[in-house]
Amino acid sequence: MHLTDLIMKEFLLKIFLFFLFTVSCLSQDIENKINLMPVPFQYELTGEKFRVDTSFSVSINGNKEERTYQAAQRMLLRLAGRTGIFLELPFVSLNDNQADMQIETKRIGEIKPGEDESYNLLVSENRIHLEAETDIGALRGIETFLQLLDSDDSGYFIHTINIKDKPRFQWRGLMIDACRHFMPVEVIKRNLDGMAAVKLNVFHWHLSEDQGFRVECKTFPKLHELGSDGDYYTQEQIKEVIKYADERGIRVMPEFDLPGHATSWLTAYPEFASAPGPYSIERNLGIFDPTFNPVKEETYEFFDKFFKEMADLFPDEYMHIGGDENNGKQWDANPEIQEFMKENNILDNHTLQSYFNSRLLEILTKYNKKMIGWDEIFHPDLPKNIVIQSWRGKESLVDAARLGFQGILSKDFYIDLNQSTVLHYLNDPLPEDIPLTEEEKKLVLGGEATMWSEFVSPENVDSRIWPRTAAIAERLWSLSSVKDTNDMYKRLGEVSFRLEELGLMHNKNYEMMLRRLSGNSDISPLKNFVDVIEPVKIYWRNRQRKHTQQSPLTRVVDASRPDAEVAREFRNYVDQFLSGDDNKLEEIKSFLQLWKNNHDELLKVIKKSPVLKEIESASKDLSTIAGIGLEALEYIISNHKQNQVWFTSHLELIKKAKEPRAQTEIMVVDTIEKLVNSVAKQ
Amino acid sequence: MHLTDLIMKEFLLKIFLFFLFTVSCLSQDIENKINLMPVPFQYELTGEKFRVDTSFSVSINGNKEERTYQAAQRMLLRLAGRTGIFLELPFVSLNDNQADMQIETKRIGEIKPGEDESYNLLVSENRIHLEAETDIGALRGIETFLQLLDSDDSGYFIHTINIKDKPRFQWRGLMIDACRHFMPVEVIKRNLDGMAAVKLNVFHWHLSEDQGFRVECKTFPKLHELGSDGDYYTQEQIKEVIKYADERGIRVMPEFDLPGHATSWLTAYPEFASAPGPYSIERNLGIFDPTFNPVKEETYEFFDKFFKEMADLFPDEYMHIGGDENNGKQWDANPEIQEFMKENNILDNHTLQSYFNSRLLEILTKYNKKMIGWDEIFHPDLPKNIVIQSWRGKESLVDAARLGFQGILSKDFYIDLNQSTVLHYLNDPLPEDIPLTEEEKKLVLGGEATMWSEFVSPENVDSRIWPRTAAIAERLWSLSSVKDTNDMYKRLGEVSFRLEELGLMHNKNYEMMLRRLSGNSDISPLKNFVDVIEPVKIYWRNRQRKHTQQSPLTRVVDASRPDAEVAREFRNYVDQFLSGDDNKLEEIKSFLQLWKNNHDELLKVIKKSPVLKEIESASKDLSTIAGIGLEALEYIISNHKQNQVWFTSHLELIKKAKEPRAQTEIMVVDTIEKLVNSVAKQ
Repeated sequence: MHLTDLIMKEFLLKIFLFFLFTVSCLSQDIENKINLMPVPFQYELTGEKFRVDTSFSVSINGNKEERTYQAAQRMLLRLAGRTGIFLELPFVSLNDNQADMQIETKRIGEIKPGEDESYNLLVSENRIHLEAETDIGALRGIETFLQLLDSDDSGYFIHTINIKDKPRFQWRGLMIDACRHFMPVEVIKRNLDGMAAVKLNVFHWHLSEDQGFRVECKTFPKLHELGSDGDYYTQEQIKEVIKYADERGIRVMPEFDLPGHATSWLTAYPEFASAPGPYSIERNLGIFDPTFNPVKEETYEFFDKFFKEMADLFPDEYMHIGGDENNGKQWDANPEIQEFMKENNILDNHTLQSYFNSRLLEILTKYNKKMIGWDEIFHPDLPKNIVIQSWRGKESLVDAARLGFQGILSKDFYIDLNQSTVLHYLNDPLPEDIPLTEEEKKLVLGGEATMWSEFVSPENVDSRIWPRTAAIAERLWSLSSVKDTNDMYKRLGEVSFRLEELGLMHNKNYEMMLRRLSGNSDISPLKNFVDVIEPVKIYWRNRQRKHTQQSPLTRVVDASRPDAEVAREFRNYVDQFLSGDDNKLEEIKSFLQLWKNNHDELLKVIKKSPVLKEIESASKDLSTIAGIGLEALEYIISNHKQNQVWFTSHLELIKKAKEPRAQTEIMVVDTIEKLVNSVAKQ
Repeated sequence: MHLTDLIMKEFLLKIFLFFLFTVSCLSQDIENKINLMPVPFQYELTGEKFRVDTSFSVSINGNKEERTYQAAQRMLLRLAGRTGIFLELPFVSLNDNQADMQIETKRIGEIKPGEDESYNLLVSENRIHLEAETDIGALRGIETFLQLLDSDDSGYFIHTINIKDKPRFQWRGLMIDACRHFMPVEVIKRNLDGMAAVKLNVFHWHLSEDQGFRVECKTFPKLHELGSDGDYYTQEQIKEVIKYADERGIRVMPEFDLPGHATSWLTAYPEFASAPGPYSIERNLGIFDPTFNPVKEETYEFFDKFFKEMADLFPDEYMHIGGDENNGKQWDANPEIQEFMKENNILDNHTLQSYFNSRLLEILTKYNKKMIGWDEIFHPDLPKNIVIQSWRGKESLVDAARLGFQGILSKDFYIDLNQSTVLHYLNDPLPEDIPLTEEEKKLVLGGEATMWSEFVSPENVDSRIWPRTAAIAERLWSLSSVKDTNDMYKRLGEVSFRLEELGLMHNKNYEMMLRRLSGNSDISPLKNFVDVIEPVKIYWRNRQRKHTQQSPLTRVVDASRPDAEVAREFRNYVDQFLSGDDNKLEEIKSFLQLWKNNHDELLKVIKKSPVLKEIESASKDLSTIAGIGLEALEYIISNHKQNQVWFTSHLELIKKAKEPRAQTEIMVVDTIEKLVNSVAKQ
């Protein structure tokens, strides 16, 4: 049945009123069973079931619009894939008002910031209506629809629900650094699918770095020929990615990082550097000197031609010019540059860089692009249509917004730093106490998760991005009031599982990497251990062991995953126990028992697989402290008091277990320490 | 150290003599530890170890030849990946005679049939020499080298060895059907890597079918626009694949299947059909009527332009024109065609097809391509430079060879039929008793595994190809005397494990598919069951349940794998036990116990995951017969005789368990039946 607009509006009004005035009479059970992520703007579960069987059918009303049609077609494939149902009508039909699911959009959306992404989804027992202003909204609604699939004894069904949804922020991004380690097209594509599944809409593609220039450049072919080790995207591949993203309602914003982080460019064209060459692709990780020469006119002639070509290749409104971490050393040492600064009354390198940026801005404007860059590009003299991407923090956004500049937040969305999901989840770009007016707040456009690739390969990059980025996606889409972390984790587990159907490898490559590390032995002992460790956080990894671009990323640290689920589960159990609820006591005991006995088993594997030697002492420590945990547990239960000697000696062993080994840390140490500290003191 | 040719020759002669006259004095242990597959032409283990540590270095001597250089570079990456070693020299150097591994080739090989692929690999305690006539030979040697990596308590090492290797057959192929189900570029690429790892050298790309036309065609764009559902390879992608294959020493031979299997072509250009259109892409699986009209001159004008474009796109010497399974119905029913046959004294459809082929041959010859096709294209009048690909069997090859035609074998290399590895492994294209002269034997060029894609998706295609195709690769590379199946299976397990590092998903997608089927529950009960089942063989699947191109390929049958390893292991244990050796008795018991208890656990998962309903009765049967197996085992051990009633009732239950369910069959039934039949009779 096709509802006219009028009926629909009235209907939605009723839903809205219902939503406002009723306290849900549904059982908590259903509420717990649905796993919407990001949480919609408004929704109301109506407690019935729309049954999905072989007769399930979908129609798009109006013109056959490719983006909606293809997305609906993929939806049918995923639905059939999950349920094993042989659909009688496996193709989406057009204007079939008998179809179970009716999809209707008013217009074709544009892939640009601020486009309407809202949708209404109404699932009743017999019919499903998805309506949206734009096809992009329909895409978002389709993803929500798929999250409503559930099953019971009688088969598969969709929870009945009324949803009115729209994003809180217009800029919800994921950056992937394809430079420190190259990420082939299929890595990008599967992550675009993951992004679409959680309603992210900006793919920020970091394409140039000291360690590699990753785009085929026809005007200056030496850039990719000499700057990439052969690992670059052809222009055809870039078009393919842009098309793929477009089909999923995602912008593709390229970043060419300038004037620093430029060694790979200068390897090809040393004449534009601020110090004499030759240069070669940087193999180390960090911040390096090579920087473009901002006082040479030839530099800007080069960039004019370069950005002309790139502006043509990338249709997005924005061009990201990087701008971060120019250490200024080459500028300080170059007399010509110093002379220029004196002549032009440029007092510091930051101002010189602003001059450089203003020249780039001229070029970008000429080619119809708006400029975006990292914090460092911010300068009050620049025009107001630029965007500041803040890696430094919300203060930068506040400062910029007060002067009328737009910004997006990336600080604390640095998913390469292996921090907890909660940290990212609670990182609101516009917290309630932000000192901005309502008008200024509008200048904070959203945020981006950043996947820097110093320590990731195509094999494990997915496990750094997912599932944590789904929580960031929720932060950027859902209301600020959505912030129950327990509920987030529950839904995150389901999203993570479902992301696999899109080809993402965060789950499946874990055991694959453990198999390789175990040398084709049984992986259980290694898995028991790696399940409770995490890579060291922030920038500790390279401090503990110097890596280059060529260092293998196949070691235990690379298999281990941020926000280790088992460690988190154990922590929750122990917290519950220590708060007086001993429902999970058996689980706590069996975890500790498992770890206590694990070292002997793992040792056998280590003997056969020298690459594991580096975790031997940590594995032993895990066994030791698990034993201590068991002991503490017994004392707590029997209320057996211990003397200072017991505490001192045991806490010493626990302290030892906290030492990072093989650039990883054991994530259950603190929890076991908590157990020890809960033993009564004599 | 760079050996001069003379010293090298003398040296090789010594090795050869040593090989001929000595009985290996090495322990069987080392022999068992190395896992070369395919087995080299000649090799001799010398029992020492070349230690691999951070100082390991590689040099290519002579010019920097891209193919060798890139392959050596990938080798270093794989070596570092497996060992976690931070190499001090992570890049291959040129003409560094101090490097540990010296690679030397005489000339750049051509990617064409019959090119020299031989190599010599000499690993001593301190130095490694890889020498080859062509860079392609060096590539083959590099793969062998990587298979020699092993480890002990002190770290990683390469087994010292002298190898002189070359292939038995020049044509060692894998065909992938990208039509029934489209296989994206990344699927093709990872399988090319797998092919290179086991020294296959022909990728046969099946690109047109009733169900899809998969190549962008610039001359006749409707072919891909209307014939592919949008799932086709752009010409850029095809070039990318050809380059990728070239870098790995692999030919890319396209197949355009004609004149039958042509529905997708005729959907776009119905005017060339033998019966009036319109046509639409075929969604069913099987053999269909639509066939090109061989008596219309326009047909050949069309093919002239078509093959001109494709001859340009695909550099291989050969163009495969399919030619199979033309059912002739449209020809029989078309008066114009019948008239033409009468006029030209063409007595049957086979001869008419030969006429069609001879016209195509003219076109191909004009564009410098040789013709290859399936059995049906064989006709004594065709010129002798065509190749017959035999799906019918060795008799066809014999018939063809006697008339001077070249052939390759595919019968019994049909890996889509889910048969055992042994069947493929023992399928020698030139068995000793083949009734051919030595000269005629030379016309049998090799063989090809064929991965038809009616029932595979990008998710599970790898598990149909690998690891079984590695055994086929050995059949085509190694001597006919290499045919110990136990030894093959031992090495196959290692190869299968190592193929994962190339991105192949035969292992990791197994558990992913089980996770989806279990609805994110613990997969153990489902895994215990699926570990011992296999998809039904040959063409039974579609007979048991009608599938279309759109049917989901995510069910239990799709997760289950051919030649189920656990079932094979159990069979071996039982055979050993029944032959009087009870070393594996405990293993047998615990398998049976596991299966006996599994159904109750699996039932809980089935209740939550309706897609599993279809295996409920089979899972119950497995439990039942496992119980019977335990009973039988007890009776055998205690020599307890049973009466006819016991046998009849139990064999009845076993018979029931043999019934395929959900298009799968339980592979331990026969083995348990064997146990029952080994119980003493009263």
